[in-house]
Amino acid sequence: MNILVTGAAGFLGRRLIEALLLRGALTDRQGATQSISKIVAFDVVPLNGLDDPRVEVVCGDIADPQVLETLVTADVDSIFHLAAVVSSQAEQDFELGMRINFIATQQLLERIRKIGSCPKWVMTSSVAVFGGQLPAQVEDHHVWAPQSSYGTQKAMNDLLLADYSRRGFVDGRSLRMPTIVVRPGKPNLAASSFASGIIREPLNGQESVCPVPLDTRLWLMSPAQAIVNLIHGHELSAAQLAQGRVINMPGLSITVEQMIDALRRTAGDEVANRIRLEPNPAIERIVGSWPGSFTAAYAQQLGFTADHDFTDVIGQFIAEYPPQGR
Amino acid sequence: MNILVTGAAGFLGRRLIEALLLRGALTDRQGATQSISKIVAFDVVPLNGLDDPRVEVVCGDIADPQVLETLVTADVDSIFHLAAVVSSQAEQDFELGMRINFIATQQLLERIRKIGSCPKWVMTSSVAVFGGQLPAQVEDHHVWAPQSSYGTQKAMNDLLLADYSRRGFVDGRSLRMPTIVVRPGKPNLAASSFASGIIREPLNGQESVCPVPLDTRLWLMSPAQAIVNLIHGHELSAAQLAQGRVINMPGLSITVEQMIDALRRTAGDEVANRIRLEPNPAIERIVGSWPGSFTAAYAQQLGFTADHDFTDVIGQFIAEYPPQGR
Repeated sequence: MNILVTGAAGFLGRRLIEALLLRGALTDRQGATQSISKIVAFDVVPLNGLDDPRVEVVCGDIADPQVLETLVTADVDSIFHLAAVVSSQAEQDFELGMRINFIATQQLLERIRKIGSCPKWVMTSSVAVFGGQLPAQVEDHHVWAPQSSYGTQKAMNDLLLADYSRRGFVDGRSLRMPTIVVRPGKPNLAASSFASGIIREPLNGQESVCPVPLDTRLWLMSPAQAIVNLIHGHELSAAQLAQGRVINMPGLSITVEQMIDALRRTAGDEVANRIRLEPNPAIERIVGSWPGSFTAAYAQQLGFTADHDFTDVIGQFIAEYPPQGR
Repeated sequence: MNILVTGAAGFLGRRLIEALLLRGALTDRQGATQSISKIVAFDVVPLNGLDDPRVEVVCGDIADPQVLETLVTADVDSIFHLAAVVSSQAEQDFELGMRINFIATQQLLERIRKIGSCPKWVMTSSVAVFGGQLPAQVEDHHVWAPQSSYGTQKAMNDLLLADYSRRGFVDGRSLRMPTIVVRPGKPNLAASSFASGIIREPLNGQESVCPVPLDTRLWLMSPAQAIVNLIHGHELSAAQLAQGRVINMPGLSITVEQMIDALRRTAGDEVANRIRLEPNPAIERIVGSWPGSFTAAYAQQLGFTADHDFTDVIGQFIAEYPPQGR
């Protein structure tokens, strides 16, 4: 079985590839278990340090049709399409966001349609497709009203993937991911970057800025849980997806204040006190437009799962990335 | 004031231009009434027979970027974007539908963004963006789940227009139009074409096929009402559109059986008996996926209006297009 992962050098991409290598097999479109023979790890920068003969690292511009021609061939059985420009970056640079977040997806789908290979396709969408007047808990039939270009681009991808799937060009699944917390590494240009930062930086002895009010409610998923759900999304059969190809993921609904309290309980006052409140209206506007809770009824019926306790999520991060300079 | 109308040779386009010429003026972005100095009537075929010095007929391919460059210049104050490939045609020819219904809209918006002129923009969207499990009456916050490529393309336009408007590239309004009944002329490739046909053809002494069950509930708007709402949509100020740029129009909720009954009351048994029931699964699938009723609360709050009585709608048609060969 040949697999293509876009955005492979990103945090989720690398983790997904590690999980796939460990797992060794996936279910194909006919419902048969197939061992993974090749994973093409595609990104604009190289995925380094994954020393496995099944991994082929390829670099290029995902919005370049010629690149896609060599990348997507008829022998690709499954695609995990994770490549994206993050939310604040897509808001700052409209053309870049449209190009990477939407046009690249459209061209990938067009390439598949022209080959006629109908691979399985798992894509990450986002809670950023929601906005405007929202109920306390968003139901699956709630309208999309993105308040950012990122959310707009993700919603357009969702519509396109659903139609390409309905027409039999691709066997698509789009997972509406919660904010992934705790990400390792450095802050990025995602509007939600602080949600990892306020846990990660204090644990590593550094100050961290919280740009949103303490009562801001977030919809979260741990990295490990995200990988479980991405693979689960792949393993479902097309027949199980009769209610649609775009699935609001389950998650953990928690306020920023509760996140900080959990950090305080886990790591103590000295660590938690490294968080500084410093409102940022641009970030507050984007993050504040996202729902803080979902029923995710369809996802739960399909067997997708959520984290249950944020203290466990912090514990998971500490175990995987032991704090430095604390 | 310079106005561009795309799809100008279509039924709504011609009627809109006639109404604009009669009206003579529109409200500009600053809220001032401006007399209409020019209407560019653009379509792939020429708009004939409108003899008014203010009308400039232009023909071309709306998905050709070079055509758009000459068509959309900084002195265009308002755009009515009506050009589209109808639903069954977009379902039969995927590439054509994507090209005319989505890519042309995207390129038009891109052209405007690059000029930086931010014109007013009124666009026709469709009830075809809805589908899947629907309540008896669709509320404004109900999710879009198109079951056709046409509906998908219209929903993508809506998302794009909302984001371009939010960013200040255009001052857009997308009106989710009900099925327009009674259209004059010949049947077309719209899945909803029968809804006009079962009134128009019997009145003109011809047999007509009804391809859907009698209890199919439709959401209708008369041509005259559609023009009133298109112009009303233009006249609203940006400030009034705080709840969003995509507006589910009010309409008349009626079953096919009630439509035929109204025809029978108006024109007698001989006319109504010219309708033959002949199920067409392809049309039934598309039309049956559309909602038959909406609250349209936002639209009503904004002052959009609906027809109240289908007998009046038939009467309007008979007055405008006196039956022939009856």
